Amino acid sequence: MTGSRAGDDADRMARIALTWLAEPGNRAVWQLVQAGGAEATLERLLDGNIPESTLRAAVISRASATDPRRLAEAALHRADRLGARVVVPADAEWPAGVEALSALELDGGGRINRDVRPPLCLWVRGERRLDEAFARSVAVVGARAATSYGTHVTHELAFGLAEHGWTVVSGGAFGIDATAHRATLAAGGLTVAVLACGVDRPYPVGNAAMFEQIAESGLLMSEWPPGAEPLRHRFLIRNRVIAAATVGTVIVEAAARSGAVQTLSRTVALGRRAMVVPGPVTSAMSVGCHELLRRHPETVVVTGTGEVLEEVGRIGEYLAEVPRGRDHARDDLDEDSALVLEAMPHRGTVGPEELAARAGLGVRTVLRRLSLLEMAGLVVRRHNGVALARPARRAPPG
Amino acid sequence: MTGSRAGDDADRMARIALTWLAEPGNRAVWQLVQAGGAEATLERLLDGNIPESTLRAAVISRASATDPRRLAEAALHRADRLGARVVVPADAEWPAGVEALSALELDGGGRINRDVRPPLCLWVRGERRLDEAFARSVAVVGARAATSYGTHVTHELAFGLAEHGWTVVSGGAFGIDATAHRATLAAGGLTVAVLACGVDRPYPVGNAAMFEQIAESGLLMSEWPPGAEPLRHRFLIRNRVIAAATVGTVIVEAAARSGAVQTLSRTVALGRRAMVVPGPVTSAMSVGCHELLRRHPETVVVTGTGEVLEEVGRIGEYLAEVPRGRDHARDDLDEDSALVLEAMPHRGTVGPEELAARAGLGVRTVLRRLSLLEMAGLVVRRHNGVALARPARRAPPG
Repeated sequence: MTGSRAGDDADRMARIALTWLAEPGNRAVWQLVQAGGAEATLERLLDGNIPESTLRAAVISRASATDPRRLAEAALHRADRLGARVVVPADAEWPAGVEALSALELDGGGRINRDVRPPLCLWVRGERRLDEAFARSVAVVGARAATSYGTHVTHELAFGLAEHGWTVVSGGAFGIDATAHRATLAAGGLTVAVLACGVDRPYPVGNAAMFEQIAESGLLMSEWPPGAEPLRHRFLIRNRVIAAATVGTVIVEAAARSGAVQTLSRTVALGRRAMVVPGPVTSAMSVGCHELLRRHPETVVVTGTGEVLEEVGRIGEYLAEVPRGRDHARDDLDEDSALVLEAMPHRGTVGPEELAARAGLGVRTVLRRLSLLEMAGLVVRRHNGVALARPARRAPPG
Repeated sequence: MTGSRAGDDADRMARIALTWLAEPGNRAVWQLVQAGGAEATLERLLDGNIPESTLRAAVISRASATDPRRLAEAALHRADRLGARVVVPADAEWPAGVEALSALELDGGGRINRDVRPPLCLWVRGERRLDEAFARSVAVVGARAATSYGTHVTHELAFGLAEHGWTVVSGGAFGIDATAHRATLAAGGLTVAVLACGVDRPYPVGNAAMFEQIAESGLLMSEWPPGAEPLRHRFLIRNRVIAAATVGTVIVEAAARSGAVQTLSRTVALGRRAMVVPGPVTSAMSVGCHELLRRHPETVVVTGTGEVLEEVGRIGEYLAEVPRGRDHARDDLDEDSALVLEAMPHRGTVGPEELAARAGLGVRTVLRRLSLLEMAGLVVRRHNGVALARPARRAPPG
C-alpha cells in the first residue's frame, strides 16, 4: 500500500473488516467508529454487543461463516498484487468531501436513505492522490440507454471540463457514464470511476478496456474490497460518494423515475451544485431530467461547459476562502444567507434583483438576508447596490 | 359596437382619442384617467396642461396635426363597418386580468418597462365575450423561426389545452404563435390573437387566412385602433397584455436574448405562471428557453399539456376561491404560506415531502409554514399527513 500511510495497520484492517460485516454507509457502525474507533467497534461487533437488531443479525450471520480479520488480510494481499491501495481517513489523501455525509439527513426512502454515512475506507487503483483529484471535480452521470443526443452533449461537456483542468467523476456504466470517462481521457484529463464492486473487477466488463485506461491515467475507486460483486443495491450506496466527493453533479439524460433523481436529491441535500441538461420533451431519455427540474427547485439547467464552470466555480471560490482563516460570522449563516453571500460579485456592486437571479432566490428573501448580512458586517450598502465588505486586515496573532 | 355597452359614449370616445395621443400603457396618461376620468384627461392634454415634458411634446405634435376627437369618431365608424367593437373598463366583458398592470413595477429596460399600465380600451373582432374567453386562458408564444421540434410540441400543447376547454392566446406571428392558433382551431377550441396593430389589418399578412378563421370562431384583439401599423415597439407594449390577461404563459422556443425573456419577466412580476418548454441544448431555438430557466427561478419546466394544466389549474382553483367570500386569514398569508396552501390537495391528506415537491419549496420551509397555517385554522394535522381544514358553514348574514 501507499508509503504516505498515516493511520496504523490495525485501524486500517479493522475498517476493512467492518466494511465486510456491514455495507458501507451503515449509520450504526459509523457512529460506533466515531465514538470508539474502528478496532474497538470491530471487537464489539464480533462480541455480539450490538444495540441495533438488524445489524446484530447481519453481523452474526457473516462472522459465523468466516473470520472478518482474515478476510481483511486476504483483501489487502489481493490489493497489493493488483497494485491497489486502501485509503482511510487518517491518510493525507482522504477526500474531505465525503465527510459531509456525516451530517446528511434525508427523508423517506427507507434504509437506503438512512444509511448514508461516510465510507470507512476507499480502495483505489491509479497513481493520483484522491484529495487532489476530487478538489476540483464534477460528476457527469446519466442513463445507460443514452441517445446520440445525450452522448454528444456528454462528450462536449466532459471534454470541456477536462480542458479547464477539472476532474470528471462518473460511475463507469454504459451510456452517459462511459462517454464522460472516454471524453475526459480523450482530452488528456483526469477521470475517476467510482465503482460499486471491487476495483479488480470493474463492472460492466464491456467497458474493461476503458477501465484499464482509467487505472493508467486516472483513478478507479470503490468502498468494497477487491473481489466484491456489483450487487444491485450497491449502486445506490455508491451514488452518495459520487455526490459528496465532488463539487457538483451534472445529469445528462435520465429516464423517468431513474436513479438520477436519488443522486440529485443527495447532491442538493449535501449543498453541492445539482445541474441538469435538458433535452427534447419528445425524448424518453430526457423525461427524468425534466422531472428533476420540475420537482427540485435547487437544480439548475446547464447547457454547456461554461455554465457548469459558472456553477462549480462559484462554489469553488467560496470553499477556497475557508482555509484563509475561518470567518465565524460566515459559519453561522443560514442556507439562504449563504446563497446570497455566494452570489455576491467579488468586485463591485450588485442590485437586489440581479442578486436574486444569481442566488436563485426571490427578491424579498434576498432583501431580508441582505439586512442580516449587513448587520453581520459581511456586505455593505452603496448608493447603487450592495458590495462584499472588505475583510479587515489580518491582525498579528495573539 | 356591442349592445352591452355600459360606459357612456363620451368616455369611450375619450379613451380612443387618448390612445392616439400616447401609446397604450403610458403611465402618466393612465394615472390622470384614474384620477379624473378619460374625458377630463383628454381635455387637459389638449389644453397642454401636462406635467411630464416628453408626453407634452408628443401630445402637442400629434394634436396639432389632427383633432383626436375626430380621429376617434372615424376609427369607430371604420370599426363598425368591419364588425369590430371597442371595449372599455366599464363594459361587462372587460377582461379583469389586465388590471393587474396597474400595480406592475419593473426595474430597468427604460420607458418600455415603465409604461406598462393597463389598456384604456380594447378593439375586438369576434363574437365571444372577452372576459369569458380569458377566464381560463393560457398564452403559448415563441420564436418566429421555429424548428419542426418547436412546432410539433406547440401543436400538441395547444391542441391538448383546447381539448380541456382552455383558451389559447398568442400573438399571431409566424412560427410558434401561428402553430398555437392553428392547433387550437383544429381542435375546435377558442383562440385569441392579441395584435400590435389594427384588427382590420392583422400582421403578418402571410397569416391572413388564419386571422379570418380566428375572427370567425375566436377573437382578434388590439389596443390600437383600426388602421394602426404594427410598429416595432408596439410588440413589446402588446406583450404585457398577453402576460396580464392570461393565467399563465408558455414559451416553446426562443432564441438567445429574444422578446420571450421580457414577456416572461412580466409574467412572473404579475404573479402569473411562467412556463418554459426545454429543448435540445444543441438547438439555437432553445437557447432563450434555457436562459429563462437559468435566470428566473420562478419559471417552471413544462413538457406537455398535463403539466401546463397542473400549473394553471392550481392557480385557477386558487383564484376561483376568492369570490366565494373573502377569507381574511388567507389574505394575510406570506408568499411561502400561500404556496403551501395552494399546493394542498382539495381532498385527502398529503405528507410534508410531497407537499414540498408540489409547492416547490424546501421541506423545512413547508414544515414551518404548516405550523402557521395550522394555527390560522387553515390546515389540520391528521395521523397520515395534513389536510385542508373544512371551511365553517356559512353563518347567516348580520
